[in-house]
Amino acid sequence: MKDNNKKAKRGIPQKSNFNEWYPFIVEAAELIDKRYPIKGMDVWRPYGWKTMRLIDSHTHDEMERTGHGECNFPLLIPEDLLEKENKLVSLLKRAREQGVDPEELRHEEDEAGFKKEVYWVKHAGENKLDVPMFLRPTSETAMYTMFPLWIRSHADLPLKIYQTVNTFRYETKQTRSFIRVREIHFFEAHTAHVDEDCATKQIKEDLEIVSRLMNKFALPVIISKRPTWDTFPGAWYTIAIDVVMPNGRTLQVASVHHYRDQWAKAFDIKYENLEGTQSYVHQTTYGMSERLLGAIVGMHGDDSGLILPPSVSPYQVVLIPIISKNNSEIIETKLTEISQRLKDCGYRTHIDNRNIRAGQKYFDWEIKGVPIRLDFGQRDLDSNKIMCTSRIGNKESINLEDLEEEINKKMDGIHETMIEMSNQKLKTSIKELPELINENGTWKLSENLENDKVYWTAFGGTDSDAEVIERLTGLTFLGESLDEFDSDVQCCISGKNTKCKVYLAKTY
Amino acid sequence: MKDNNKKAKRGIPQKSNFNEWYPFIVEAAELIDKRYPIKGMDVWRPYGWKTMRLIDSHTHDEMERTGHGECNFPLLIPEDLLEKENKLVSLLKRAREQGVDPEELRHEEDEAGFKKEVYWVKHAGENKLDVPMFLRPTSETAMYTMFPLWIRSHADLPLKIYQTVNTFRYETKQTRSFIRVREIHFFEAHTAHVDEDCATKQIKEDLEIVSRLMNKFALPVIISKRPTWDTFPGAWYTIAIDVVMPNGRTLQVASVHHYRDQWAKAFDIKYENLEGTQSYVHQTTYGMSERLLGAIVGMHGDDSGLILPPSVSPYQVVLIPIISKNNSEIIETKLTEISQRLKDCGYRTHIDNRNIRAGQKYFDWEIKGVPIRLDFGQRDLDSNKIMCTSRIGNKESINLEDLEEEINKKMDGIHETMIEMSNQKLKTSIKELPELINENGTWKLSENLENDKVYWTAFGGTDSDAEVIERLTGLTFLGESLDEFDSDVQCCISGKNTKCKVYLAKTY
Repeated sequence: MKDNNKKAKRGIPQKSNFNEWYPFIVEAAELIDKRYPIKGMDVWRPYGWKTMRLIDSHTHDEMERTGHGECNFPLLIPEDLLEKENKLVSLLKRAREQGVDPEELRHEEDEAGFKKEVYWVKHAGENKLDVPMFLRPTSETAMYTMFPLWIRSHADLPLKIYQTVNTFRYETKQTRSFIRVREIHFFEAHTAHVDEDCATKQIKEDLEIVSRLMNKFALPVIISKRPTWDTFPGAWYTIAIDVVMPNGRTLQVASVHHYRDQWAKAFDIKYENLEGTQSYVHQTTYGMSERLLGAIVGMHGDDSGLILPPSVSPYQVVLIPIISKNNSEIIETKLTEISQRLKDCGYRTHIDNRNIRAGQKYFDWEIKGVPIRLDFGQRDLDSNKIMCTSRIGNKESINLEDLEEEINKKMDGIHETMIEMSNQKLKTSIKELPELINENGTWKLSENLENDKVYWTAFGGTDSDAEVIERLTGLTFLGESLDEFDSDVQCCISGKNTKCKVYLAKTY
Repeated sequence: MKDNNKKAKRGIPQKSNFNEWYPFIVEAAELIDKRYPIKGMDVWRPYGWKTMRLIDSHTHDEMERTGHGECNFPLLIPEDLLEKENKLVSLLKRAREQGVDPEELRHEEDEAGFKKEVYWVKHAGENKLDVPMFLRPTSETAMYTMFPLWIRSHADLPLKIYQTVNTFRYETKQTRSFIRVREIHFFEAHTAHVDEDCATKQIKEDLEIVSRLMNKFALPVIISKRPTWDTFPGAWYTIAIDVVMPNGRTLQVASVHHYRDQWAKAFDIKYENLEGTQSYVHQTTYGMSERLLGAIVGMHGDDSGLILPPSVSPYQVVLIPIISKNNSEIIETKLTEISQRLKDCGYRTHIDNRNIRAGQKYFDWEIKGVPIRLDFGQRDLDSNKIMCTSRIGNKESINLEDLEEEINKKMDGIHETMIEMSNQKLKTSIKELPELINENGTWKLSENLENDKVYWTAFGGTDSDAEVIERLTGLTFLGESLDEFDSDVQCCISGKNTKCKVYLAKTY
């Protein structure tokens, strides 16, 4: 073990150097292979894909629990459908810039939106296509084209669907595995409701789902309402869920959008209400992606590799036979029995029978972040015990009679400890913004900012006040906390009374 | 019930008119929606997607059982990687045409293969890409680009991986849901082995998997070795698995390819063997697709709609409350209990609480092919019974004490009956080819062919003999049966002795 720890420390960049550690570890743990010849499009290896599918399975369970139906829409979207979306997006953008009601601008036309960020299919075989198509960046356009066919009356509402699919962005910034990629493993739920109020209730349900999932993944998050200028195009408001990575950068892992009836008007999605008249539906969306895996890697890993929460670990228990020349058969038979007992409890187990040194096996499963390792050799056989090593700490011999009970206890303990540890990490990552001081018309900070921290402050100022703060701090407004201050406090820049708490951070 | 049957018969085209029935039923049962504005790219609705995912889950289980790892490769393939494949494919094609060893032609170069059948991405955002990319039709090129990075020594073999992904064909023929589409929900397994013999063993394992899966789906199949001219490009030989649809057309639902070392040579996939020298690997692939669902729809359905095998039915038991004004609460409570008892046995159940007539519910679930329907009303409550209707036949009141036992028995019975019924259908679909008679140098058939049949005959002739038969019958050579005749019989055209039995059919 000591030998291997040394080896690990030699081979793996220190976690404190996160920007080197992260790209190294995602390949060393065999989550993905970056050597595929297109930048930002990685190959998912079996260990990585299994982890991602386990993450997906928890999402899937939540969707089933809350009555969403799983669909699968085509990848390709004809350009002419985008026109509706472009008009909506550019309309809302200009309305926001000019500070006017979108309705006032609805007659104008423009091209914008996603067009600059998509991959285009304009040729098939040896033909040029009459109507160019693009690879979906998300599926609003594809889905809302079908919604008017499915929604006729109030009896068809709420309509709640979701899908898990590959989406595409022509990303020009530097790519990073799981965090910024060009082919994105993406989850999106879309709903339609009779009115704004019902859509608002959906937002609440989504946030409850987020909270249950983040608990499963042991990920503490910052939940905030994005500032108006950073709201998803076409949304009334956007609530974003951010994880703080070890370098202090925030990573948006989920977002929830309230669309009111803005998209419904663009796509003509109406229903006949109880009075027999036509009304536009109110819509919401909820999106997540493979960034969840990036967050799990970043939040939990250490100098020796990944640490996977038991809920998403492809193997929760790895069993290693410690054999000598003449006992391999009995050890392996016994180990198969032990593995089966754990499988019967619902655990994902794996016996590592590779013909290599045990030390090398320890090293491999440590990098891969398996929660519990069981070693079993002659001494254990004689004493009816097994040596149990937890990925986040102790090592202890347990009686085989108590196997199930002990593993249950340890597995729960690992999950709880991971939650505590990451809550602690989040807590130490967030600080109050130093006081802003105005010296002769120039704003200054009362102390220097730390490089790896997220800041909060009280804010009740204008958009241009926000701009001043962003320029001064080099940070981005993450958004308004959903938890307000209990009573009025002074805005950090305008001095006005406010209950609003905002977060500022460097973002991915 | 009678009322609804009448309605069904009014609404649904007769199954005997398969070419009208099929496109109608896939939409009426809400498997897919064809109204998406790209031909051959349908929207999977929740009921269809759930069925497909259940089909996938059986495949997934088989892959896990046989030690395949699940990967996920990028959708896009740079054009320059295709060059290797094109060279290989065109080389083998020309070698076959000229009847020479491929090695003799290996110096030549040409462009062919998939290029005419793929969708091209040549633009992203406002840029023209330096290297055009295409949407994968299958993943040989993407995967075999990575294999040399993963395979170094014999210890890395066998390499067995698979993925379930969307693939694309620029289909110019008429499209048909699940059968001929442009975005294909596709399964592909790829393996690499130390030598030809090990690859041949993999083919055997694949055929065993096919047989287990087809049993699960109650699909009897014709397994044959495709004729040389119809072998997958780059393959040494191809074994195809065909289902016979009610109109007598065969639908290829799976295929298995032995590549020998042909692709390994094109992609330079070598390993160091025990003697320390470099050898090329031998490869196989195994593919299936959403056609499996098409086959299930076609093989099992009847005039009233789908009939889904219990193994892939999203709901295996649907429970319908028969309520009056004052007993709805007790009936619904009791039905929830009954549903839970069945869930505890592992059944997928659904209580249909919609506020519509029971008759309409019967009609809907009949179209959707749910194996068992349970109706529960006041009379059942009083007598502690429940009315059980099987989708393929009888209706019977069962004692609630025996619920689990009775449903187990019935569900197994449905599966067995479906296997028997479809075996019977296959049997009556296949006939011996009428005698070929040569009149003054012109070949004739001794009797006319039936329109909806597959034919078998003894064949030991040449490729041009085969061409004569195809032209005369209007049928296509499906391939050689893997089961030979016990002893020599005469070839239908050349009169030579042969043990080879071939199938001829109209194919999808």
